[in-house]
Amino acid sequence: MRFTSEKRLDDGVLEREFTLGEIPGTLWTPEAAAPVPLILMAHNNGLPKGQPRLVARARHTATRGYAVATIDTPGCGDRPRSAADEQARADLRRAMRTGEPADEIFESLVGPLVDKAVPEWQATLDALLALPGIGGPVGYSGWTAVGIRLAVAEPRIAAADFFAGGYVPRAQRQEARQVTVPLLFLLQWDDEGNPRQRALDLFDAFGSREKTLHANMGGHIGTPWFEVEDAGRFYDRHLK
Amino acid sequence: MRFTSEKRLDDGVLEREFTLGEIPGTLWTPEAAAPVPLILMAHNNGLPKGQPRLVARARHTATRGYAVATIDTPGCGDRPRSAADEQARADLRRAMRTGEPADEIFESLVGPLVDKAVPEWQATLDALLALPGIGGPVGYSGWTAVGIRLAVAEPRIAAADFFAGGYVPRAQRQEARQVTVPLLFLLQWDDEGNPRQRALDLFDAFGSREKTLHANMGGHIGTPWFEVEDAGRFYDRHLK
Repeated sequence: MRFTSEKRLDDGVLEREFTLGEIPGTLWTPEAAAPVPLILMAHNNGLPKGQPRLVARARHTATRGYAVATIDTPGCGDRPRSAADEQARADLRRAMRTGEPADEIFESLVGPLVDKAVPEWQATLDALLALPGIGGPVGYSGWTAVGIRLAVAEPRIAAADFFAGGYVPRAQRQEARQVTVPLLFLLQWDDEGNPRQRALDLFDAFGSREKTLHANMGGHIGTPWFEVEDAGRFYDRHLK
Repeated sequence: MRFTSEKRLDDGVLEREFTLGEIPGTLWTPEAAAPVPLILMAHNNGLPKGQPRLVARARHTATRGYAVATIDTPGCGDRPRSAADEQARADLRRAMRTGEPADEIFESLVGPLVDKAVPEWQATLDALLALPGIGGPVGYSGWTAVGIRLAVAEPRIAAADFFAGGYVPRAQRQEARQVTVPLLFLLQWDDEGNPRQRALDLFDAFGSREKTLHANMGGHIGTPWFEVEDAGRFYDRHLK
């Protein structure tokens, strides 16, 4: 892991860009005397790690006493996309807009993105836990499908909050019952890209004994800010 | 309104029993220099105002800087019950246990309880707002059907959190669209007495632009304590 830039923000948080092999990432750490827990914060597929809503969540979470890291995984953010992926993304947007069946397009695009993302998150986790000032336990926040795979594959994940979850690849829908860590599952009631009933069915399917659903009005990007604070208290209950 | 007892609790909250005509009630107030907002906290039908879970919620909410009041409405708690009501309660319990259709029994029991409860809550609200140290705005917490009726009838209610809501009388299900105050709607995912889909349909029906759903695992009385704190923060956002 190689740090390529470093900036002290006005809330005291240290923001560092890093690379780990081909993986570009950002790490936010609070001013703290003792090692802090770590949150892996994954944006839903395709959005760049520098997207302002993700950055705001990450900084707020860091000020609560967490190290927070995000990466661009293959085909996402600023990583190169294949012509086939670009075509699949265009097909998916069109299908969502026109109401055509989108499941197969989604599966062919997002299934492989998840498969490629998870090993990179695990490599990043190894590297982050080797840094001074970062202890455990480890939480996960964000992209539902990647989170399901990671929570099942990775015993170091102790709690997770997922967002949306109406569209999730088949493999992860089937794996949901194997997720057993405490969960906070956040959805937007009228999310234009995530059918409500599918999201509720997924919430129902998780194997976790302790799971909480939060739903708010509005579309995909309308989540109210207080949910970021609620997520922070969820981490406080399980990671501190 | 006549105070019949007064006790200073170890968290600094003043707990006073009162009567208002035939209505018995309890008022919890924090140590505060300026007038505080008021929360009307109504237990789901039948349970007494001294029920420990209600008292714990009320005391916690008072320590956050709220006056909190509860009353036993007609046919509830320690108020006299008619022989017909006792029979209907027994029939309802049997129907819930055996899975017989319970809607008509529920309607005939709870419909009238709600109709009688709401004017008493309004009279109590008048009396409470006349006390020194209690200002506005006013929130409502608890019994869904009473809360719907009260939020529609009573412009002084500025925000409300409802619990359960699988079984709600027809009149209040129909009125739900007229509720427009900010809402926090809390349900237990496997509430044995409140069918999940009906509760979700009710949440969908509310007219409020700002409404949030919280759901947790387990049965009717399994709500985790952190939801009391979440409700407190909901009040803080809307009543302070």
